[in-house]
Amino acid sequence: MRVSVIGGSSVDEETSAIAREVGRLLAEHGHTVVCGGRGGVMAAVCRGASEAGGQTIGILPGEDRSAANEFVDTAIATGLGNARNALVVMNGDAAIAIDGATGTLSEIALGLDAGRPVAGLDTHDVAGVAAVDTPAAAVDYVERAGPE
Amino acid sequence: MRVSVIGGSSVDEETSAIAREVGRLLAEHGHTVVCGGRGGVMAAVCRGASEAGGQTIGILPGEDRSAANEFVDTAIATGLGNARNALVVMNGDAAIAIDGATGTLSEIALGLDAGRPVAGLDTHDVAGVAAVDTPAAAVDYVERAGPE
Amino acid sequence: MRVSVIGGSSVDEETSAIAREVGRLLAEHGHTVVCGGRGGVMAAVCRGASEAGGQTIGILPGEDRSAANEFVDTAIATGLGNARNALVVMNGDAAIAIDGATGTLSEIALGLDAGRPVAGLDTHDVAGVAAVDTPAAAVDYVERAGPE
Amino acid sequence: MRVSVIGGSSVDEETSAIAREVGRLLAEHGHTVVCGGRGGVMAAVCRGASEAGGQTIGILPGEDRSAANEFVDTAIATGLGNARNALVVMNGDAAIAIDGATGTLSEIALGLDAGRPVAGLDTHDVAGVAAVDTPAAAVDYVERAGPE
Repeated sequence: MRVSVIGGSSVDEETSAIAREVGRLLAEHGHTVVCGGRGGVMAAVCRGASEAGGQTIGILPGEDRSAANEFVDTAIATGLGNARNALVVMNGDAAIAIDGATGTLSEIALGLDAGRPVAGLDTHDVAGVAAVDTPAAAVDYVERAGPE
Repeated sequence: MRVSVIGGSSVDEETSAIAREVGRLLAEHGHTVVCGGRGGVMAAVCRGASEAGGQTIGILPGEDRSAANEFVDTAIATGLGNARNALVVMNGDAAIAIDGATGTLSEIALGLDAGRPVAGLDTHDVAGVAAVDTPAAAVDYVERAGPE
Repeated sequence: MRVSVIGGSSVDEETSAIAREVGRLLAEHGHTVVCGGRGGVMAAVCRGASEAGGQTIGILPGEDRSAANEFVDTAIATGLGNARNALVVMNGDAAIAIDGATGTLSEIALGLDAGRPVAGLDTHDVAGVAAVDTPAAAVDYVERAGPE
Repeated sequence: MRVSVIGGSSVDEETSAIAREVGRLLAEHGHTVVCGGRGGVMAAVCRGASEAGGQTIGILPGEDRSAANEFVDTAIATGLGNARNALVVMNGDAAIAIDGATGTLSEIALGLDAGRPVAGLDTHDVAGVAAVDTPAAAVDYVERAGPE
């Protein structure tokens, strides 16, 4: 399935390592990563997925797809600004949120609103989000809660 | 100024009365109400503003502007679905959130992300939102925190 | 009804005078002008409508509603770039195209695609557009072809 | 490079064969096909590209990516309706238009407006579009006029 991974565009090393591990696990389990295509959590998760041979999609806020991080396989430019946040979660069957600020919070909310299961790793405390402690638990949650 | 009022599309009578009072106060203070154009909090705040002689703008998710509630003066159809949530807060100088579920939470987050001051009445507990107890306090907050 | 007036953002004096006359006539007939909110034809038609006491709506490509021309009564920021062209014609019951280049052509096509009657004044030759010679003929056409 | 192929969602066999040939040639030359993801020209071009081992991206108007035709490798749901037409041409480095009605015309115009070279096969007569007679000539044009 496809899993949207959402999180901050500027993160510390520990968060980056967590995101990379999420990407690796998703790829190893045969899932495609969907993200916002930029830096921070988005680059780290794509790097992890890419290193494990997985596929990555980056849905960018701007009109120029070359702004995608280097680990994005399929970059989609939108020119929609923050309205593209709705597309990031719409294009996954489930979502994993990692850290993040207000942009990430909007994606969590839009994901829940669209009926997507959402796992949270050290992120906003929102009703409906399954708070988990490890990348493995996050992937496990979306596999159990997502579509067959 | 313009104030985006965000909240659930289906609400109880008490919440509806609060939203109507917010609308009334905003209109009496010369502000224009921006909302998502539909029912619940959106209809109540427009009703309150309209009854006090104020102006209301409804930014709708669908393509048909006739779906706006009857108290919307200027209905804008978008056909963007939930991506229109970004436009609701973009078109206000500040926001007041009342109650609401995941859609409202996404608008709170998008508003904060766009730098808008946000007052909250019995709504999601989000860092950056000024929790207030009354419609008057909400209007007072956005007047002090919003643009000159 | 509402009439979307579409045309170039930079035009000569003659075209500007035509657009202003279209705006004046629409206002005198009780119609609201919808446009892209910027300069050229958009500013001229809003000016004409405004001078005749009519209402004007400007749906902008950017995130800052203060970019609207001074004759726009209700400015709507979208942050969608050219994707907002679909919203300009969606928000009118009919359209009048005046002059214009590729942006205008996209709006003509999107208007026709959405089932809107379109009158054309010295603009692109497109099947389905009623080519007319004067502002009065343009207004007459949209009144006859538009909704009751 | 990426080439947006735009055209009608319902076409006759001859047009379908032309679109399939365009897809095949683009794939053989190493280009990725971007399209609106649905039927008619969109399905035929994706089929041709897919049969030749190429990659295809479909950018859909709706919220459900399963609406993509079976030859789309990467389906992107947008929920934007016709506003997604801007994204179809934004995500290619050049465009080839085949047949088509008003939706296609809007994409031609949006493509030109975004500075994309556009080749046309039996499509709208628009200034700036290079009218060509064969799939090979269309691919040749976008290769010469597109980015290095």
